[in-house]
Amino acid sequence: MKLLRVGPVGQERPVVMDGAGNLRDIGEPEIDGAFLASGGVARVRDALERDALPVVDVEGQRIGAPIARPGKIVCIGLNYSDHAAESGQDVPAEPVVFMKAANTMVGPDDEVLVPRGSVKTDWEVELAIVIGKRARYLESREEALGVIAGYAISNDVSEREFQLERGGQWDKGKSCETFNPIGPWLVTADEVGDPQNLPLRLWVNGELRQDGDTKNMIFDVAEVVRYLSQFMVLEPGDVINTGTPAGVAMGMPGQPYLRAGDMMELEIEGLGRQRQTVGQA
Amino acid sequence: MKLLRVGPVGQERPVVMDGAGNLRDIGEPEIDGAFLASGGVARVRDALERDALPVVDVEGQRIGAPIARPGKIVCIGLNYSDHAAESGQDVPAEPVVFMKAANTMVGPDDEVLVPRGSVKTDWEVELAIVIGKRARYLESREEALGVIAGYAISNDVSEREFQLERGGQWDKGKSCETFNPIGPWLVTADEVGDPQNLPLRLWVNGELRQDGDTKNMIFDVAEVVRYLSQFMVLEPGDVINTGTPAGVAMGMPGQPYLRAGDMMELEIEGLGRQRQTVGQA
Repeated sequence: MKLLRVGPVGQERPVVMDGAGNLRDIGEPEIDGAFLASGGVARVRDALERDALPVVDVEGQRIGAPIARPGKIVCIGLNYSDHAAESGQDVPAEPVVFMKAANTMVGPDDEVLVPRGSVKTDWEVELAIVIGKRARYLESREEALGVIAGYAISNDVSEREFQLERGGQWDKGKSCETFNPIGPWLVTADEVGDPQNLPLRLWVNGELRQDGDTKNMIFDVAEVVRYLSQFMVLEPGDVINTGTPAGVAMGMPGQPYLRAGDMMELEIEGLGRQRQTVGQA
Repeated sequence: MKLLRVGPVGQERPVVMDGAGNLRDIGEPEIDGAFLASGGVARVRDALERDALPVVDVEGQRIGAPIARPGKIVCIGLNYSDHAAESGQDVPAEPVVFMKAANTMVGPDDEVLVPRGSVKTDWEVELAIVIGKRARYLESREEALGVIAGYAISNDVSEREFQLERGGQWDKGKSCETFNPIGPWLVTADEVGDPQNLPLRLWVNGELRQDGDTKNMIFDVAEVVRYLSQFMVLEPGDVINTGTPAGVAMGMPGQPYLRAGDMMELEIEGLGRQRQTVGQA
């Protein structure tokens, strides 16, 4: 099942895509942590099967992030060995964890802004996990997979100078305004099936820059969720960015960082497509 | 003016302390970002001056965190030179920024849990800033001071092995369950006056461990807020932990990290007092 939020910023309407590609009202106020925690996915599935959800006409409207107000965005660093190598870093012995401010989240086709003073704004296509149940100290991979509501495409936009050259921790280059396009859809875990078999790609101005596959993650989805739950309480609606494969600007000859006017396109098989133009803050 | 939230976890009632020390209903649903963004502080002040707020009897009830559902908790590292020295780190050339998961926030006297597998859980008394207005790219210290709603005591509880020895970024040791007691009060900026003249102290089992003063911050409150706004959008309700002075367990002979049964007390002049017992997760 594909859940999404359609409409102007701050006025998004939650809808579900049916098997024929029609968008239908979900009969719930929002797609957020409360919706997920209260069994909202099952309610919508049931209503969809009973043909109880009216088709809505939102043709041409903006698509927002598919989850409203996440409590946190947790990120895994260096989770593909080819990206660790291009970053000049060792393959980590255990997951590298950092965070992005939750208000970086924007829609899949919204403008991404180069921060003021930035000359090293970079892209990162990633598989995002959306948590569906509260989770602490999970004891197995099975438990970990059981708390996942679904998946989405995420662009973990990063400012490399802020992240790596301005003293201290990575978060400084990860939390800038508009730095996390997500969507178009929250695709439920049952529809995705195996999350370790998803090709993911990113183009800049039409040129393929990243071409990876989630099968090459160092720490897979189940392990990432199990591991994180040892260090923090995961809540419904939380988002986890699971790391990016090789092909970011930082690792390329000439380091072609993003400039206003550039265009990014991202794709993960089964999760749809994003397209962002780059502006200047 | 002192704002606080009183009652069981998840059912806190927002109240204000009047000049005589009575707690009065604020006539608003919550002390949160929406309350601050919509001029809630001015409304409560006006109602208090008109004697329009009823005294409530909440004697003996738990005190919660004084701000509900912060969008993010941003932290400044190594912001007192004596703490940088005891941590074996250089004094930073610009602020070190990291984040704590927002769901670490608990009340000022709630239990703090040593995480499973932890042997290096540590304390950090800090001055917390609560943001009152949306802020991006602030241009001056005056603008920065103008977006601050108020201040509170914060205990930036930290697991040093998770933070420093488990690969990667500090956030891994900063985001554990119960790791951010805050309160008892959100004291409005006008009442606090100069935020760089506040003695702050922490005791463990009755022994004074930290005894600092906000006048010794490397980057002061105005600079921290101005600086952060260059890297992220600050929102009403966001919390900034401004760093801790010397005296944490990591820097002491024998490194006496927290164990279940220990008791922490924290105090900042004008901001009240906290007292947490330590439990085991």
